[in-house]
Amino acid sequence: MLEITDRTKLTRLSYRQVTDRTVLHAVLDAGIVAHVALTTDHGPVVLPVGYAREGDRLLLHGSTGAGLLRDAADGAQLAVAVTLLDGLVYARSLFDSSMNYRSVVVFGRACRLHGEDKLAALRRLSDKLMPGRWDEVRPPTTKELAATLVLAVGLDEVSVKARSGPPSDDEPVTDPDSVWAGELPLRTVAGDPVPAPDVPAGLAVPPSLGEAAARVGRSAAFPASR
Amino acid sequence: MLEITDRTKLTRLSYRQVTDRTVLHAVLDAGIVAHVALTTDHGPVVLPVGYAREGDRLLLHGSTGAGLLRDAADGAQLAVAVTLLDGLVYARSLFDSSMNYRSVVVFGRACRLHGEDKLAALRRLSDKLMPGRWDEVRPPTTKELAATLVLAVGLDEVSVKARSGPPSDDEPVTDPDSVWAGELPLRTVAGDPVPAPDVPAGLAVPPSLGEAAARVGRSAAFPASR
Repeated sequence: MLEITDRTKLTRLSYRQVTDRTVLHAVLDAGIVAHVALTTDHGPVVLPVGYAREGDRLLLHGSTGAGLLRDAADGAQLAVAVTLLDGLVYARSLFDSSMNYRSVVVFGRACRLHGEDKLAALRRLSDKLMPGRWDEVRPPTTKELAATLVLAVGLDEVSVKARSGPPSDDEPVTDPDSVWAGELPLRTVAGDPVPAPDVPAGLAVPPSLGEAAARVGRSAAFPASR
Repeated sequence: MLEITDRTKLTRLSYRQVTDRTVLHAVLDAGIVAHVALTTDHGPVVLPVGYAREGDRLLLHGSTGAGLLRDAADGAQLAVAVTLLDGLVYARSLFDSSMNYRSVVVFGRACRLHGEDKLAALRRLSDKLMPGRWDEVRPPTTKELAATLVLAVGLDEVSVKARSGPPSDDEPVTDPDSVWAGELPLRTVAGDPVPAPDVPAGLAVPPSLGEAAARVGRSAAFPASR
């Protein structure tokens, strides 16, 4: 169970609050990009970053040259959001119309990982963002490792919200039978892999791309190049 | 052209900075959910919200009961991110692997809209999030309008970043012909509309859902219910 704190308690629509840690893990494992917010001397900043979950901590990585991640590494307070948009909810009024979603916000401070911890976290990030790819390419070099910042944020203070299912119209509807209501489901899908221009014609697409595509789902209607 | 300020200047990978205002508009018009960050007494907070763009301002809306939006309405500094994830970029090393994306971060303070301004903004939000729906349902009631907070943030200080195309391997590759590299494109698509349980069997799905699905693209491989 997730403990509810002053920061994670929903002040409205509290029935959407989720305290089941397995839901937290499932949402984090399904997302790809997190939005990391922190406060600087110039006010709040938010940036998108790839992330992974390992047990009850969130792993973030980026360049050691990225100023905001350095601030985070120095122990700044963070709020990290992962949002999965599952659909648009068409009620019989715009007021009651909504979105279906699964949303996580993590509050905390990051700690910077080093040595074996850091390498293991990078492997975990790779396995999450590009499953199977680690074994298809050469290992990271010492120079690359030195240029990469890896942070961990504990999943100690976390808000999880979710909405699913049909719309609920609070106001009595004049003529409910004349206005359609329901959901337009949305999801992220993968299209066909696009080889880099210098890939030889005979070189097969490796299994890792199939793994990544299978994770999000594939789309037959997806154009191969845009 | 977007003016580059201390807050919007990229400190690394500056070739990814975009200063074309038409790109800014296109990214904002393509997204559905923004992540709004602000600083509270308890530190930074970030939350996902539906949004729309009207000219050179961003429109946000929510319940008057939502504490964070009230803070925003009171003139707190905001950072608002809209991120479109376009693909996973498989380089020949994990270090050079990346994501293709279009990313906007808006810095500023919100002002609260009232009266005709507010109604026009709600119509714009509706036309963006559920195109065509405004004319299919009853107009908002006075009570509903009173319970809705509508905010505008000027697009004055904005950072736009984008990456597209194949991976670039900085390090010389030992055997470039043996390792595949390229992109796995990702996008958000709509599935088949799911009627609410109380919708009569004969009632057709209205045109608005087709408009929304056409905007994001449809997926033949998308399961109708999950």
